Amino acid sequence: MAVGQVTFPVMHQVDGIELGTACAGIKQTQRDDLLLIQMREGSTCAAVFTQNAFCAAPVVVAKEHLQQAPRWLLINSGNANAGTGKRGLDDALSTCADLAELAGADARQVLPFSTGVIGEPLAVDKIKAALPKAFANLAEDHWEQAARAIMTTDTFPKGASFTLEIGGETITLTGISKGAGMIQPNMATMLSFIATDAKIERELLQACLARATELSFNRITVDGDTSTNDACVLMASGCSKVPELTEGSPAYQVFADAVLKICKQLSEAIVRDGEGATKLMRIVINQALDDEEAVRVAKTIAHSPLVKTAFFASDPNWGRILAAVGRAGVDNMDLERVDIHLGDVCIVRGGGRAEDYTEAAGQRVMNEPEITVTVTLGRGSASQEVLTCDFSYDYVRINAEYRT
Amino acid sequence: MAVGQVTFPVMHQVDGIELGTACAGIKQTQRDDLLLIQMREGSTCAAVFTQNAFCAAPVVVAKEHLQQAPRWLLINSGNANAGTGKRGLDDALSTCADLAELAGADARQVLPFSTGVIGEPLAVDKIKAALPKAFANLAEDHWEQAARAIMTTDTFPKGASFTLEIGGETITLTGISKGAGMIQPNMATMLSFIATDAKIERELLQACLARATELSFNRITVDGDTSTNDACVLMASGCSKVPELTEGSPAYQVFADAVLKICKQLSEAIVRDGEGATKLMRIVINQALDDEEAVRVAKTIAHSPLVKTAFFASDPNWGRILAAVGRAGVDNMDLERVDIHLGDVCIVRGGGRAEDYTEAAGQRVMNEPEITVTVTLGRGSASQEVLTCDFSYDYVRINAEYRT
Repeated sequence: MAVGQVTFPVMHQVDGIELGTACAGIKQTQRDDLLLIQMREGSTCAAVFTQNAFCAAPVVVAKEHLQQAPRWLLINSGNANAGTGKRGLDDALSTCADLAELAGADARQVLPFSTGVIGEPLAVDKIKAALPKAFANLAEDHWEQAARAIMTTDTFPKGASFTLEIGGETITLTGISKGAGMIQPNMATMLSFIATDAKIERELLQACLARATELSFNRITVDGDTSTNDACVLMASGCSKVPELTEGSPAYQVFADAVLKICKQLSEAIVRDGEGATKLMRIVINQALDDEEAVRVAKTIAHSPLVKTAFFASDPNWGRILAAVGRAGVDNMDLERVDIHLGDVCIVRGGGRAEDYTEAAGQRVMNEPEITVTVTLGRGSASQEVLTCDFSYDYVRINAEYRT
Repeated sequence: MAVGQVTFPVMHQVDGIELGTACAGIKQTQRDDLLLIQMREGSTCAAVFTQNAFCAAPVVVAKEHLQQAPRWLLINSGNANAGTGKRGLDDALSTCADLAELAGADARQVLPFSTGVIGEPLAVDKIKAALPKAFANLAEDHWEQAARAIMTTDTFPKGASFTLEIGGETITLTGISKGAGMIQPNMATMLSFIATDAKIERELLQACLARATELSFNRITVDGDTSTNDACVLMASGCSKVPELTEGSPAYQVFADAVLKICKQLSEAIVRDGEGATKLMRIVINQALDDEEAVRVAKTIAHSPLVKTAFFASDPNWGRILAAVGRAGVDNMDLERVDIHLGDVCIVRGGGRAEDYTEAAGQRVMNEPEITVTVTLGRGSASQEVLTCDFSYDYVRINAEYRT
């Protein structure tokens, strides 16, 4: 049940980046669940990982291998290889070694990623058996198959792709993501793989990705949980004719904004596919003292089960929003400066119900599938936005019945 | 839908404390919704209030009047008088004045409390009209009527009562509470009124109540929201023959433990009546570095929608519990020292599934209506406990349909 119309976009190929899928039969036997991504030699690669203290085994290995010059990403769905102890680490390393042998490379050039059930041993034999097929399947035009291979509880494949023109030459950005709870510890969870043909050195690519994920993937939430497996990878093949991007240059700034744009598109797709979601809520906080305060208030609203169930019911229940603002831990909050808008309708002015507010006007906004809640704090000039979705019967059903 | 068998206990009268109820017809016309509590002259009174930055009007007034020597509590259900601005303050003060006139006292001797819908003006005329009846109804044996008069979405009245013997004489403690979401901003929410005949000066009574609520009402959660109206009041009439309780004395310690006990009973009743609750979960954290850390980890588990829906499904999904521990913000957490028990069954040992764990054993515990989850962190010697309930279809239904 996705919010809004979701169509898989045209995916521009990225020179130097090939993708191959295969069915390893890890959890289901009817669909591809293994994805291999190959970067041409000389590519650079950046990645950000979950902040959960209990990283899954593949995250531990990928973080370490990122320091070498990775050439391959090896991703499986159906099993997260999380909560699997030392055996999990050995298993992740062994799949890297299997691929390295096939490719005639070093196991440290492979970054492993896993998504699926926690606490079950990884079916390394099944993965090893399917690897040759994925390797043989490598091609630059397999983005949609790739997006499908990494799905778990996702109801649709998630992709984004566009090109930039810089000085008459083109840079392409194409990426996929998966996830249908911001993070579901059990379906350990959010993964995104983005490729570009830009030429850019690793440290700068990493800085660019860190900023973009902070303002996109870290600004979405379905249920407030943080997975053991989350990762976002940005690969740059360097095949574009645009000269190498250097720090502070106008071309770099254009590129960095494009990376943010694709991260926002891919993260928004996850919220639209939020488990049981019927509405997309954009929580905008204006006039906060600083960004941290704005994000904190936005997330307190976005995580409130009471706010989320009210939105599911299309109920313009401003008392719940106001109470969430009040418990966000903001010092010296002045209720009389707080305004709240639902869409373009002012519902709270100066901390109380706006005099010109009518239930009909509020109801009209709440009946939309996408709703912007704007809270003005009257404390400063910082603004931030967080995306979330509502809380429905289906959220409970999906998460109550997941293992059965 | 309450968890466990809930019977209203025998309520011991407290000398010097009288209760009177009446129907003001604030939201419903079929039941008493107004409660008046009168303390004999010379009583002391302590109270703790919500930490929400947006206190409801009655909370603002009650905090101020607490500094005088209050003789009356005036409580209404059906309307929270929250988000009502200056008019709300005037309304709260005017009900105090109405009662003071009736009692021949000063308005500042009245503490007002309101619970119910946010953002609607208080029906002061209806309250004024019903006050004489509540006043005429004052009696020491009206505790059950009082417990019923303060209910909102509660499915049963909540009371606790017992006596202590100190040096051959008796002290009585009797109290009531209401609330069926830890806090529902809209049904603004948790209230508790406890009376004793102990003789104890105000500051000491306040210290005693502060400690007790920290370890009871502040250790329960239904949905993690914090209301604008929460309050807990402890009244001491001084009528007991036990000599005045003084700080540090053995008698004071016995009394303080009894106050904690009654607060625990009254707060546990709220969780048992948690909206849509089908299970009571006791989250125990052992071997934490300090109490703050233990409470933080316990609350992260208790607030996780993924953990709560798994418990609703009776699913021993330890991956979700482990992932919640991992995102609780504990520095240098060592996964290999973490054990998790469900009831008496060890499900995680050293960060991975216990080798002797069986699904049958886990399922046996999960089928119980009351489940203790014990997480051992292996970091220190602090232990804390938090009570919560599961997340069911009915939670969504109750909160989605509340205003309709």
